[in-house]
Amino acid sequence: MEKHVVINLSNRHLHISQEDLEILFGAGHQLKNIKHLMQPGQYACEETVTLVGQKGSIENVRILGPVRQQTQVEVLQSDVYKLGKIQPPLRESGGLAGSAPFELIGPAGRIKKSEGMIIAMRHIHMDPASAERFGCKDKQIVKLRAGSPGREAVLENVVIRVSPSYALECHIDFDEGNAVGIGNGTQGEIMK
Amino acid sequence: MEKHVVINLSNRHLHISQEDLEILFGAGHQLKNIKHLMQPGQYACEETVTLVGQKGSIENVRILGPVRQQTQVEVLQSDVYKLGKIQPPLRESGGLAGSAPFELIGPAGRIKKSEGMIIAMRHIHMDPASAERFGCKDKQIVKLRAGSPGREAVLENVVIRVSPSYALECHIDFDEGNAVGIGNGTQGEIMK
Repeated sequence: MEKHVVINLSNRHLHISQEDLEILFGAGHQLKNIKHLMQPGQYACEETVTLVGQKGSIENVRILGPVRQQTQVEVLQSDVYKLGKIQPPLRESGGLAGSAPFELIGPAGRIKKSEGMIIAMRHIHMDPASAERFGCKDKQIVKLRAGSPGREAVLENVVIRVSPSYALECHIDFDEGNAVGIGNGTQGEIMK
Repeated sequence: MEKHVVINLSNRHLHISQEDLEILFGAGHQLKNIKHLMQPGQYACEETVTLVGQKGSIENVRILGPVRQQTQVEVLQSDVYKLGKIQPPLRESGGLAGSAPFELIGPAGRIKKSEGMIIAMRHIHMDPASAERFGCKDKQIVKLRAGSPGREAVLENVVIRVSPSYALECHIDFDEGNAVGIGNGTQGEIMK
């Protein structure tokens, strides 16, 4: 069985609906792709917003494109202390029912939503051929061993997500990357 | 064998020599204890300094007392990106030979040192009786399982430190605490 997978680190970011995008950036606004990401069709946008908390705000939170059905804000646990008291739940992308409220400010307006803010679960994107090679199924929970020398850890509860639209890539966030002392492009080992 | 130990999270901080303290805060300055820490005789001080990097600075870095022989700055991996290009090595407290250079600014002066900045290794303080109960020896390397539901991890390379002057307590840093979604006072499980 194949065991090794490339890890890239997610910083805080958001996915946005066209409707919310137009409130924040103006009528008819279209996202500007400035950098292709490893997942096919996904890209970092020129557009950033301010995420407003009860205690503090975080500026320059980047939008990832393309637009989605529902706006989703993904923060780091370390951000939670800057923002204030609201603890976003740990969720898979898209699992927004009952998630945390949030407020965003853009150059043309602001939005306040009752849900949509999460901390993303550790996950591994796989195309179907890779999933077969790894002996993994969609939604399967695995462990991932990663880390620079002396800071290794076995991260538990890593969810496998299989789709023909995915490329093989593990996503953990900056807090997790810092805790194990790795940057983008490091190899991790899947453990079952 | 006993397995569970309380975990407290270290933020960036420094230990300071009396000589360096007087350069930063003025001749004859004495550290002001504002909060006792769990380790006997250790305390958080009123005094904070600015840690200067090549790229950016971090203000309000707290001094922990009492004074030590050599000034030692302990940072988070997440701080490294704010400070600049210097990557401090992962070390046990006191292991400063060949560690990273640093610069500090206090209200009365500044110091620049060629070594003394580290990222602290995950460690568990034990008094001798606790070490016996846990079946652990000084300098032994163990694993520690910790985490809130869904964010659990097994942290490897956790060093046991045994001394009659210690209280039973595990120290990991804020990056590591955030990565596993825990705050101060959480229980971890020692795994060998």
